Amino acid sequence: MSDLQLSPQGRLRHLLTLEGLGRAHIERLLDRADELRTRFRGGARALDLLEGRTIVNLFFESSTRTRTSFELAARRLGALVVNFDIASSSTTKGETLEDTLATLEAMDSDAFVVRHKENGTPARLALHARRASVLNAGDGNHAHPTQGLLDLLTIRDHKPRIEGLTVAICGDIRHSRVARSDVHGLAAMGAKEIRLCGPAALLPEADSFPGCTLVDDLDAAIEDVDVIIMLRIQKERIDGLPGFDGAEYFQRYGLHRARLARARSDAIVMHPGPMNRGIEIASDLADGPQSVVLEQVANGIFVRMAVLLELLHKQA
Amino acid sequence: MSDLQLSPQGRLRHLLTLEGLGRAHIERLLDRADELRTRFRGGARALDLLEGRTIVNLFFESSTRTRTSFELAARRLGALVVNFDIASSSTTKGETLEDTLATLEAMDSDAFVVRHKENGTPARLALHARRASVLNAGDGNHAHPTQGLLDLLTIRDHKPRIEGLTVAICGDIRHSRVARSDVHGLAAMGAKEIRLCGPAALLPEADSFPGCTLVDDLDAAIEDVDVIIMLRIQKERIDGLPGFDGAEYFQRYGLHRARLARARSDAIVMHPGPMNRGIEIASDLADGPQSVVLEQVANGIFVRMAVLLELLHKQA
Amino acid sequence: MSDLQLSPQGRLRHLLTLEGLGRAHIERLLDRADELRTRFRGGARALDLLEGRTIVNLFFESSTRTRTSFELAARRLGALVVNFDIASSSTTKGETLEDTLATLEAMDSDAFVVRHKENGTPARLALHARRASVLNAGDGNHAHPTQGLLDLLTIRDHKPRIEGLTVAICGDIRHSRVARSDVHGLAAMGAKEIRLCGPAALLPEADSFPGCTLVDDLDAAIEDVDVIIMLRIQKERIDGLPGFDGAEYFQRYGLHRARLARARSDAIVMHPGPMNRGIEIASDLADGPQSVVLEQVANGIFVRMAVLLELLHKQA
Repeated sequence: MSDLQLSPQGRLRHLLTLEGLGRAHIERLLDRADELRTRFRGGARALDLLEGRTIVNLFFESSTRTRTSFELAARRLGALVVNFDIASSSTTKGETLEDTLATLEAMDSDAFVVRHKENGTPARLALHARRASVLNAGDGNHAHPTQGLLDLLTIRDHKPRIEGLTVAICGDIRHSRVARSDVHGLAAMGAKEIRLCGPAALLPEADSFPGCTLVDDLDAAIEDVDVIIMLRIQKERIDGLPGFDGAEYFQRYGLHRARLARARSDAIVMHPGPMNRGIEIASDLADGPQSVVLEQVANGIFVRMAVLLELLHKQA
Repeated sequence: MSDLQLSPQGRLRHLLTLEGLGRAHIERLLDRADELRTRFRGGARALDLLEGRTIVNLFFESSTRTRTSFELAARRLGALVVNFDIASSSTTKGETLEDTLATLEAMDSDAFVVRHKENGTPARLALHARRASVLNAGDGNHAHPTQGLLDLLTIRDHKPRIEGLTVAICGDIRHSRVARSDVHGLAAMGAKEIRLCGPAALLPEADSFPGCTLVDDLDAAIEDVDVIIMLRIQKERIDGLPGFDGAEYFQRYGLHRARLARARSDAIVMHPGPMNRGIEIASDLADGPQSVVLEQVANGIFVRMAVLLELLHKQA
Repeated sequence: MSDLQLSPQGRLRHLLTLEGLGRAHIERLLDRADELRTRFRGGARALDLLEGRTIVNLFFESSTRTRTSFELAARRLGALVVNFDIASSSTTKGETLEDTLATLEAMDSDAFVVRHKENGTPARLALHARRASVLNAGDGNHAHPTQGLLDLLTIRDHKPRIEGLTVAICGDIRHSRVARSDVHGLAAMGAKEIRLCGPAALLPEADSFPGCTLVDDLDAAIEDVDVIIMLRIQKERIDGLPGFDGAEYFQRYGLHRARLARARSDAIVMHPGPMNRGIEIASDLADGPQSVVLEQVANGIFVRMAVLLELLHKQA
């Protein structure tokens, strides 16, 4: 997939995964995001770097949060954004997904932002695209590369360097594309240790996260870490589990003040959102001084701008 | 709520209700709307006063008419508008409304246009907002302040002054946020008498409209008035009422030619739309010379522009 | 309807049908589309010819493909586009369609792009419009004029002239607005012969396509033609037919390599999309060298731009 997303010159043709992206490449993207953030915080309200470019949001799973972030990133760079409503689209009229893509590409679309519940759909579309770029906005439990990048940018904002850090990722690791992209990004940046923690049923296969440490006990997982990433318990998935009890989950796998005290005193608390307060995270911590949850959201815009510029801006 | 929506300098921070807005403030907004109307009617097609500002439409009740009016007002001033699709949003994934707002605000949104079936939701969000403004686009039966303003502008277009006018508001007063905002606006502007008329079951509690006269008989209510505001019978609410009969309602509470003759000969007929022709208003009156229904719609755009400018335009 | 859509000077006021549009008028539109295509292919990314104009998409039937094409055409010319969500609109609250139109027109909308399952709805709205233009984006089985125009442009791109060509249109002719608009356009441009082919149950009434030849056998219909237009079998309609068998349909009425060999060697293969591969068209032909399906899609944007400019651009 790394080959598919990189040009021979090592430039992004698509963004499908962080796996295989080198540290220098990731740093270049983060620096670009940082620079854009400086321009917008300094008063810029809109740039025209992508003026006249057309970007299509193809969300087969609903996610207004991520879609809005991509939409704002693109429009603040001057691009024209179309939200393609899947529920009423031709794919429900028997058209193949490849034909839908080819049709939209024939309308001179420059990029597709794709979310799909099946692993590999963005890669499949990237293989089929003639000229347009595909950005993976989350596929199954495979990857969510812009979430990985925004998490790295947020960590970098708070720590002198990512190299050497100890990070705990907690919750439903098994089904999480966020965890996978975070791990790929953290590994590339040289994090020292990544601990994965969650109930046995939600831990991944032994070999699917090479180099990570699986920990069943959250207290142990948090001990002396620099960064804690709490994952969302997906109620829509868990509610079906007989015997799931939110209070009991919080007791064993939720982050609260006493537990957080085990981490380094300057540890930051992250969450990709949307949060279930009182289930995976105590409400006071979500709003507390160590929480960087809203910074993650803000950084998402700039990281997506940086990726769009590398993919689409010819002079970039 | 007046305190919540006004800055110490008496400038709007949010727009939640017309209650407590002074006459001078309302007149300033109407003058601004009038001036914008003149510019657009004179040939302006788009201004850039809000260029680069981001406005999010958060409609928890569907209302394409009001949403479109806000959207056009904002975009014709150069703002970037995002329609946040509530049905597929994170609030259905267990996220609190406050967290949804905080997330969107972290994406550098400048204003939220909120419609919600529960009274007070916009105020609740305004309390929670860090920097962004909240515009109430209708909450429960509490308030619909921009409707109140556009009604005032329309009346002012046809009458030398609002002070001293007699106004009848007819229909489902009890459930109407439009009636409440109209009454607050008319009272502030010095209307002489406001008569509320409707079936007993749809009249408000005695003390909820201080200073107004409750009238059960429509013929009496209309006698010599300057302005008649007919409210929409909400079929979705009424259809559930056993024994509701549209023809019978029209007979007793609908506006038709013979009845209109009781008003002043220069009385204007208003309706917030959408109209049920033949139920609350005769079709010929809806299209007749005294009807200003479409002027209300047109004025809605300019009033919303004026409010957005006061809230968001730093040089305004 | 011709009278309704043309001004006394012969300029389009609305676009409802190709019926009655003269050859010179059609050629002017195609030339304009061609010229716009040249500008955009030459590097133009966005023009401002319709800056500040407001265009409302009113799709009562879902069709993301056509809606997106109209939206991109309008926005790349600088217009402001509003997608009016019918499902949540006032028409479901008892408002008449005419009142919805009048309301949106009062908001200074310049044009309405209308799709509706009932024949004549766009014409009905055009009659009611005060100032705005109505573009028919497909009504029942009556007309789809921009599809007709884009098909003509695509044919003209591949043939020295349309005059004298032999064209076969195959599939569900009876229910097809595309077939009707293609026939009107081809006849105006002087095509020599138009053959209509499909199962007896899907052929039209004898007199509804004057001047065309009805052919039951596809092999015969294709013999020596210059252009083949395959229509979509609407699964949502056909699935209800007891005994419909996709493989059997393909055998008798699908286009495949052996059958295509009966046409002229330089024949082009067209399809309005979305395609059912393996039912009306073999997958290899859909992607083959004679297929111009994606060119049709691309041309759709430029044809719609040309129509919008004639309708809305005052200096055009």
